[in-house]
Amino acid sequence: MKYRETLRIVDPTLRDGGLVNDFHFTDDFVRALYRANLAAGVDYMEVGYRASKKMFNPADFGPWKFSDDEKILATIGEPAPAIKLSVMADAGRCDFETDIRPRSESPVTLVRVATYLHQMSIALEMIEDAKSKGYEVSCNIMAISAVQEADLRNALDALAKSPVDTVYIVDSFGALYPDDTRRLMDIYLDTVGAAGKGIGMHAHNNQQLAFANTILAAEAGADWLDATYDGMGRGAGNCPMEHLVGFIHNPKYKLRPVIDFAGLEMESLRAAGTVWGPSLAYLLTGQFNQHPRAAIAYTKAGRSDIDNFLNEVSNTN
Amino acid sequence: MKYRETLRIVDPTLRDGGLVNDFHFTDDFVRALYRANLAAGVDYMEVGYRASKKMFNPADFGPWKFSDDEKILATIGEPAPAIKLSVMADAGRCDFETDIRPRSESPVTLVRVATYLHQMSIALEMIEDAKSKGYEVSCNIMAISAVQEADLRNALDALAKSPVDTVYIVDSFGALYPDDTRRLMDIYLDTVGAAGKGIGMHAHNNQQLAFANTILAAEAGADWLDATYDGMGRGAGNCPMEHLVGFIHNPKYKLRPVIDFAGLEMESLRAAGTVWGPSLAYLLTGQFNQHPRAAIAYTKAGRSDIDNFLNEVSNTN
Repeated sequence: MKYRETLRIVDPTLRDGGLVNDFHFTDDFVRALYRANLAAGVDYMEVGYRASKKMFNPADFGPWKFSDDEKILATIGEPAPAIKLSVMADAGRCDFETDIRPRSESPVTLVRVATYLHQMSIALEMIEDAKSKGYEVSCNIMAISAVQEADLRNALDALAKSPVDTVYIVDSFGALYPDDTRRLMDIYLDTVGAAGKGIGMHAHNNQQLAFANTILAAEAGADWLDATYDGMGRGAGNCPMEHLVGFIHNPKYKLRPVIDFAGLEMESLRAAGTVWGPSLAYLLTGQFNQHPRAAIAYTKAGRSDIDNFLNEVSNTN
Repeated sequence: MKYRETLRIVDPTLRDGGLVNDFHFTDDFVRALYRANLAAGVDYMEVGYRASKKMFNPADFGPWKFSDDEKILATIGEPAPAIKLSVMADAGRCDFETDIRPRSESPVTLVRVATYLHQMSIALEMIEDAKSKGYEVSCNIMAISAVQEADLRNALDALAKSPVDTVYIVDSFGALYPDDTRRLMDIYLDTVGAAGKGIGMHAHNNQQLAFANTILAAEAGADWLDATYDGMGRGAGNCPMEHLVGFIHNPKYKLRPVIDFAGLEMESLRAAGTVWGPSLAYLLTGQFNQHPRAAIAYTKAGRSDIDNFLNEVSNTN
C-alpha cells in the first residue's frame, strides 16, 4: 500500500487552516507553502474557499476565504503554477455561476464541492456546473459521522450517476474510529467506487486518529488523502502532512521539505499565537460526535473548567 | 469490541511518566492518581519500577524508580489497596531475588517483567521467580518494531511454555503502523495466545498512533491495554487514558474522573515545566524506527534546528 502509484496528496493548509486565522496568511507564507509542496511532491494545493462575497464581507477575512483567480496568480507569481491548485466551494455559500469561471481562464484545476448531506441537490448542481466548465471536481461530504447510512447510500448513488470525479469522506467532527472508517470505505466502494469514482479521506484530529484514519482509508482503497502542515486546520486540526509523507514510501514524495516547513513556518505561526491541535475540549466534542464549535469557543475564551465543559457537551438536548 | 468484558486497563502514568521527571512525583499526586483510577474503574495501577539500588543511586531519583513495598503502602495510606497494583521489573536491572518479596508480604499484585528480546533468558528466570512468589506476571517485550520475526517467534514459543500470564507488545520507538500492529497480533495469537496467555498492548505516541494501535490491538484480541493520563510517558508519551476510556463503552469505566485528572493534575505538571508528548523530533525517531533518546536530547537542549536533526536521525551508521 505504501507504494501505490495512484495515491494523491492534497494539502488544504490554507483552506482548513484558514478557519483558524480567518484566512489571514501573508503572501510570503503562501509562496513558501507553494514551494514546500512543490519540493515535497504534493499533488494538489488547496488555496482556500471560493466563498460568496454577497454572504461574507471581504473586509472581515483574509483573501483565501475567496481565493480570487487574480489573487492566486499574483501571489504565486507564476503564469502556469507547477502544482495543481484547488479551491473549495461550499454548497449554499458560493456564487458558483459567476465566481467559478471556465477552467481555461483560471489557475485552478480542481473544484472541491463541500456539502452536508441535506444539501446534496445544490451540490449536484455545483458539480454539473464545474464539470461543464472543464474542472476536475470532487464532492466532500461533511459531518459524515452524523449521517444515517440509508441517507448516505442514497446520496452516494446519486453521486455515482453524476459527473463527479472523486467523493470524500469528511470527518468534520473527528469522531470516526478506525472501525467506522473501514465501514464507510465499504459503503463508498460499493457505490461511488463501483462507478469508477475516486475516494478521498479528510480527517480531523480530535481523538488523535486523523493520521490513523487516513492511512486506514488508503489501505481500504482511498486514493485521495488530505493532509496539512503541522495538522493545521479547524479546532483539533487535520492529518499532519509530515506524518503522511513519512509513511508513504513513494519516491515522488520528499520528507525534508515537509519537515522544514513544519518546523520553521508552522512553528512561526504557533509562536505568533495561532492555536490549533488536539486538546481535552476537542477530544470531548469528538467523543460525543459533535461539531467542534463549543470546543472552539471554550478554547478562545481561555477556559480551563473542563468538568463544566464535559457537562455542557454531554447534556446538549 | 467496545463492550468486551475481558478488557483490562493498566495505568503506568507513574512508571512511564516517571521516565520524564526521574520519578519525582509528590505523594499528593500519587494519592490523587490512585483516587482517580479507583473512580474511573481502571483495573491496574503501575506505581513504578522495582529497580536495583546497586545499579541506581536512590539519591538520584524519586521513590517510584524503586517502588518499595513500604513506600507504596505509606503513600496510598490503605492497608489493602482497592485497586490492583503493579511494578515493572527490568531484565538485568532488578535484584528480583531479594527485592521482590512473596506476594503475601507486598501490596503488589502484578509484576511486569520488561525485556529486550536478547535478554529473554533472564526474563524467563524472573517470570519463574515472580510466579513462584505468588504474583500475576506479565512479560513486556520492548522495542518490538526492531526485532526479527523469527527471533520473536522463538521467544514467544518459550513464553508460551512458561508460567507467564500475559505477554505485551511494547512499541518503545512509537514506530508501529496499524498494519504492523495487526501483523504482530497475528504472531502473538499464534503463539502465546494459543497457549492461553493474555496479550497486552503498550504503545508510544511518536506518530500519534498510540491510541489507534491500542484499539486496533484490542480489536484483534489484546485484552490488556496500557494508557496514561494525558499520555504521560517517555518522549512522545503513551496512549492517553482519556481517549481510551472514552472509547470503551463498558459501564465499569467512568470518563469524568479521567477528564478531571487529565485537566487538573496533569495540566499542573505541564504548567510546572514537565514536557512530554508528540513533536517533530519524536515523529522522526518513530519514522526511522529508532530509540527516542536522540529526540529526548534534542528536546531537552531546546533545539529547533529540525533540519539538522533529520540529518542526524537519517544518517546514524
